[in-house]
Amino acid sequence: MDWKAEISAAARRTAGHVQVTPVMTTQGFGLSFPVEMKLEHMQHTGSFKARGAFNTLLASDVPAAGVVAASGGNHGAAAAYAARALGHPAKIFVPEIAGPSKIALIRNIGADLAVVPGEYANALMLARQHEADTGAMQIHAYDAPLTVAGQGTCFAEWDAQGLEADTVLIAVGGGGLIAGALAWWQGARKVVAVEPETSCALHAALAAGGPVDVDVSGIAANALGARRIGEICFRLAQGAVTSVLVPDAAIAEAQRRLWSERRVLVEPAGATALAALMSGAYRPESGERVAVLVCGGNIAPDPFAE
Amino acid sequence: MDWKAEISAAARRTAGHVQVTPVMTTQGFGLSFPVEMKLEHMQHTGSFKARGAFNTLLASDVPAAGVVAASGGNHGAAAAYAARALGHPAKIFVPEIAGPSKIALIRNIGADLAVVPGEYANALMLARQHEADTGAMQIHAYDAPLTVAGQGTCFAEWDAQGLEADTVLIAVGGGGLIAGALAWWQGARKVVAVEPETSCALHAALAAGGPVDVDVSGIAANALGARRIGEICFRLAQGAVTSVLVPDAAIAEAQRRLWSERRVLVEPAGATALAALMSGAYRPESGERVAVLVCGGNIAPDPFAE
Repeated sequence: MDWKAEISAAARRTAGHVQVTPVMTTQGFGLSFPVEMKLEHMQHTGSFKARGAFNTLLASDVPAAGVVAASGGNHGAAAAYAARALGHPAKIFVPEIAGPSKIALIRNIGADLAVVPGEYANALMLARQHEADTGAMQIHAYDAPLTVAGQGTCFAEWDAQGLEADTVLIAVGGGGLIAGALAWWQGARKVVAVEPETSCALHAALAAGGPVDVDVSGIAANALGARRIGEICFRLAQGAVTSVLVPDAAIAEAQRRLWSERRVLVEPAGATALAALMSGAYRPESGERVAVLVCGGNIAPDPFAE
Repeated sequence: MDWKAEISAAARRTAGHVQVTPVMTTQGFGLSFPVEMKLEHMQHTGSFKARGAFNTLLASDVPAAGVVAASGGNHGAAAAYAARALGHPAKIFVPEIAGPSKIALIRNIGADLAVVPGEYANALMLARQHEADTGAMQIHAYDAPLTVAGQGTCFAEWDAQGLEADTVLIAVGGGGLIAGALAWWQGARKVVAVEPETSCALHAALAAGGPVDVDVSGIAANALGARRIGEICFRLAQGAVTSVLVPDAAIAEAQRRLWSERRVLVEPAGATALAALMSGAYRPESGERVAVLVCGGNIAPDPFAE
């Protein structure tokens, strides 16, 4: 697949539908070097997921049955938002661990929402059943070319905004976002995959030589808790990423510092990449310029929850 | 005074000490037109006030007695932060209405803090007494040339970041920030002064033909509740600004929408300029390009309060 062309096409297709998110360079967080950040948590519905959802719908003939998605919460909100914006009905399956903020977010967008016991994989199973039963179009959360190309527009946009970093740290769940980065940069920048110790499907796959099932838990599980890394991500990542793990406590500390130093309020997943720098899980070499993608802001509890 | 030169000097002086804050253009908030925003609430200590504080200290011979400031909270935090960064002791007076978030913020920076009954004017009186007693250097919150020139760097920076707007909306308390905008632009862009109906010292001064005392109250009072507009601001503003007022309910709604649509979590003062657009207090003409300065993020309660 010519990923550069796919991502460029996705960028043209989604222009005006997705938010161009701001970038900044900041020094702090107890680090001795500056960090470039892209504030992608300011994307529509609070995460990068809107990029893949819009790209998928805009590139497809959506059936009258509409769209269906399974999600830990962020992808479901994005799919519901994109479907509403483009005039399609949406059915969203989320696991209970999505939590009240994300469930309320999806409900408020107006989607038909089903909350499923257990983890993400259970919601995905039911979404596939719904697809088979109704003919609705599935928007996969991470393991589909249009999803990956959509997420890749985030990095094309960042390049156009003047990104200087040698190395970009990205949190990984199912791998759609980092797949987009790897597909876009193709080695032009070093990509570091950051996963919680408690949800590390990519790390396990790289160790095993192929995707394997992992247990998922911890404070970022509703965003990063994929049981198995996507095939597209795995193929792009093998031999091409540096994989590091961070403990939940480091994620919580990064989340706290993003607020106290920069007034950036994010969910744990949104602080996970920064946590790799703050904890020393990834230590840049002298002179190595680093960047962090801030990927999600759907914190619980929502500060304005009724 | 040659304000352009003063602000350019302030920008050179404070470079590396203040955060270059991000900008974005977004469409939403129920508006039919896009809005450019500068996210100045991501400045050190959560408001633009760090610019004036650093400029004042860097341009001055600070006595051994250090610095003293009176503040509704944000200026005190900025003065304490700049003093600590530059190695000076700081004594900060805040009124009770500063509230627990801002009081904790100043304490955590390590300043010597006194919480004073009543409103901002009482804190200012005690700060002046402390200045007279100890020889400490006063950093005025808004009505001093170095403060105004420092705040003006925000607008010089925004121009350099590609601001396109014909019209910029700015919340007004004591008037240091909008004075910086008027001093920098000198008519090159239209400046709209937005005040809460419940704290409108500039509006009252423009009506009276000179600064007059007003009562202050409402949800933004600890940031915008100056009893009397600064003389510097008044002289720059007379005949040069459009003054509008917004009710507290409109401020609260803008604050809620900044979070729900853009994951920008700010205090009421930080949402006040946007509230003028959302409420229709300021209605741009067809084709008029507008921008909003998001000035403060020190919300109460602090999302990470212990």
